[in-house]
Amino acid sequence: MAVGLGPLPEFYPVAGLRLGIARAGIKKPGRRDLVLLALEEGARVAGIFTRNQFCAAPVLVTRDHLSKASPRFLMINTGNANAGNGEKGMVDAQACCSALAELAGIQPEQILPFSTGVIGEPLPVEKIRSGLPEALDNLSEVNWTEAAQGIMTTDTLPKGATRMLDLEGHAIHISGISKGAGMIRPNMATMLGFIATDAAIEPGLLQELVSELGEKSFNRITIDGDTSTNDACMLIATGKSEAPQITRDSGHLPAFRDALREIFMTLAHAIVRDGEGATKFIGIRVEQAGNTQEALDVAYTIAHSPLVKTALFASDPNWGRILAAVGRAGVPDLDLTAIEIDLGDVALVRNGGRAADYTEARGQGVMNQSDITIRVALGRGEIAETVWTCDLSHDYVTINAEYRT
Amino acid sequence: MAVGLGPLPEFYPVAGLRLGIARAGIKKPGRRDLVLLALEEGARVAGIFTRNQFCAAPVLVTRDHLSKASPRFLMINTGNANAGNGEKGMVDAQACCSALAELAGIQPEQILPFSTGVIGEPLPVEKIRSGLPEALDNLSEVNWTEAAQGIMTTDTLPKGATRMLDLEGHAIHISGISKGAGMIRPNMATMLGFIATDAAIEPGLLQELVSELGEKSFNRITIDGDTSTNDACMLIATGKSEAPQITRDSGHLPAFRDALREIFMTLAHAIVRDGEGATKFIGIRVEQAGNTQEALDVAYTIAHSPLVKTALFASDPNWGRILAAVGRAGVPDLDLTAIEIDLGDVALVRNGGRAADYTEARGQGVMNQSDITIRVALGRGEIAETVWTCDLSHDYVTINAEYRT
Repeated sequence: MAVGLGPLPEFYPVAGLRLGIARAGIKKPGRRDLVLLALEEGARVAGIFTRNQFCAAPVLVTRDHLSKASPRFLMINTGNANAGNGEKGMVDAQACCSALAELAGIQPEQILPFSTGVIGEPLPVEKIRSGLPEALDNLSEVNWTEAAQGIMTTDTLPKGATRMLDLEGHAIHISGISKGAGMIRPNMATMLGFIATDAAIEPGLLQELVSELGEKSFNRITIDGDTSTNDACMLIATGKSEAPQITRDSGHLPAFRDALREIFMTLAHAIVRDGEGATKFIGIRVEQAGNTQEALDVAYTIAHSPLVKTALFASDPNWGRILAAVGRAGVPDLDLTAIEIDLGDVALVRNGGRAADYTEARGQGVMNQSDITIRVALGRGEIAETVWTCDLSHDYVTINAEYRT
Repeated sequence: MAVGLGPLPEFYPVAGLRLGIARAGIKKPGRRDLVLLALEEGARVAGIFTRNQFCAAPVLVTRDHLSKASPRFLMINTGNANAGNGEKGMVDAQACCSALAELAGIQPEQILPFSTGVIGEPLPVEKIRSGLPEALDNLSEVNWTEAAQGIMTTDTLPKGATRMLDLEGHAIHISGISKGAGMIRPNMATMLGFIATDAAIEPGLLQELVSELGEKSFNRITIDGDTSTNDACMLIATGKSEAPQITRDSGHLPAFRDALREIFMTLAHAIVRDGEGATKFIGIRVEQAGNTQEALDVAYTIAHSPLVKTALFASDPNWGRILAAVGRAGVPDLDLTAIEIDLGDVALVRNGGRAADYTEARGQGVMNQSDITIRVALGRGEIAETVWTCDLSHDYVTINAEYRT
């Protein structure tokens, strides 16, 4: 089903980070469902998290632990989101941290837990505990591919990206994995991203980078408008590279940020390309907005319109639906005659109506492609924002109407 | 496909209002597609209109004419929305008004035009003009059923409601018709409602009533979150009943308002029951909100969630999806432990997690019904709001992915 999603890359190892994978039988026997990311001492971790007020227990625990101690492990289970479980969810998440802490000889606060899977069923703590020794046994710097597979739920393909940079003759590596395909099949929740580099990063800058790059990538994608209770995107810097530390004033920062941005974008777009039932990958770029909020309001109104999404599925250049979505996006005092809408390189709307040189054949030519850009210019200012989404197909309904069995 | 939508009632005629219907061949030959509502002198008309900033031309003309003259005709065509047509749309709408004005010997400003159908294609003015004599010829007080059929686009059934009241020994009649079934099949836009009474209503009160009752009925329904460019709900009072005038201070106002509310609710709910692909009629009641806005934000977030809607289609009591929708509705400082969610008479969520006595069998029992109420209590105040929607089925995708042929 995935749209233009290639195979995993050959991941560059990230010095100071080892990955361990276990088959803990959390939901089904025999599949990889427990992943550990073990960090050497001195590694720094920053993250961004779901804005859903019903945060899952592991999100609350991870935020708390991040504020208290230097992380040594990220512990990710699939098959159960440990969300909607009230106080018991907190106790269970803590129990898993304690079990790993004991085995590894560290403090529970040095462990960041992540869960993805069914909402509202108790976390199978005993299964996770039993799987930990296997995951610890096979910790290795070269396990990125297995980890990308180990964090999947209903994803049809694993997702990863990797880059190498040369800084004054020293290599810096960045590798990342992500998962998610909509808020997902009956309660199989969560978008997760884990990106790691062996670069040394100035304290504070790491959080700035994950906030800035995550905002423009993971926070600009939408499958169906639903926000999972478990979303998290974590950026890890082990500092084991010989390259000089990257600081806010560093001449190397622009190149590093560009490489990191590519990783974030690739991982975020991969989630959309693997969106539930997706047959098309859609970029919606809103230009000439007066401010960021109105740019995003217009972009998301288009991206979430079931009418626009079904038209995209049908390869129907139905510009009236896009126009109507712009009109109801809540932007005050919109000048309708100033608005331009393009589909790929074809002008759809000019001066409040269909563009004079528009023909169905030209619109159809763009619609038949699998990667499509919709451009909307509001004629109000200088701000531009892009969001990415996919179409709404029969398979989306089938996937989401299936039973939780 | 319609959910629990009965046959049309035997409409009570409304003295002072005659309905005429023509087959003008606007989109297809042979079907009723042009409807006139002729008002005797002295009738008053008030309305509420789409909030989409891309108002269709007829909406702009109707608002303008309402402010200038006493209406004598409402002129409704299906098959073409006359939306997205820029300046030409305005000229065409005016041309139709002028044609009818000439035939009827009145001013063009006394005509209120309404259009529904395809967006972005020129209004076939000549066909409408040619159909006017037939519609004028068959004007009659008893044509409500034919008018209900004549305003349909992709509706699978016509929609109507009617009531009679006794005021001090004098009869008052209220009859109404509506159309709409989602923002609708490739560009077949619009929700329309026309409600008329022979009661005499104090000036000013008529607009208050349509605003108040329309807000709680037509403005509380959603199929897919899309707002048509052509939506309008009009309330007509001919004043031909012998009953005393209804004023703000009148002892009869409460009974009249209740009857009118029933008409508005029936017509609005009928649109949801005939929603595109609908198999379930869903009421979402949010209680204990701190204010109206947060009640509506929560209700609409649930109503628009594709995950909730597909779960309803699947009769899957998937409470995690409802909980997640509440959590992302943007209500600040939500106390998760205070929230209650019920499905029909079954408690789903209490204290931030699944209700202790909840069982899948009990949830399934409610989900198997075709009329379902979801109740959410926020524990923040005294405000309650209800919105109505339908589920998201395969047929919705099929209907909206079909070509505009």
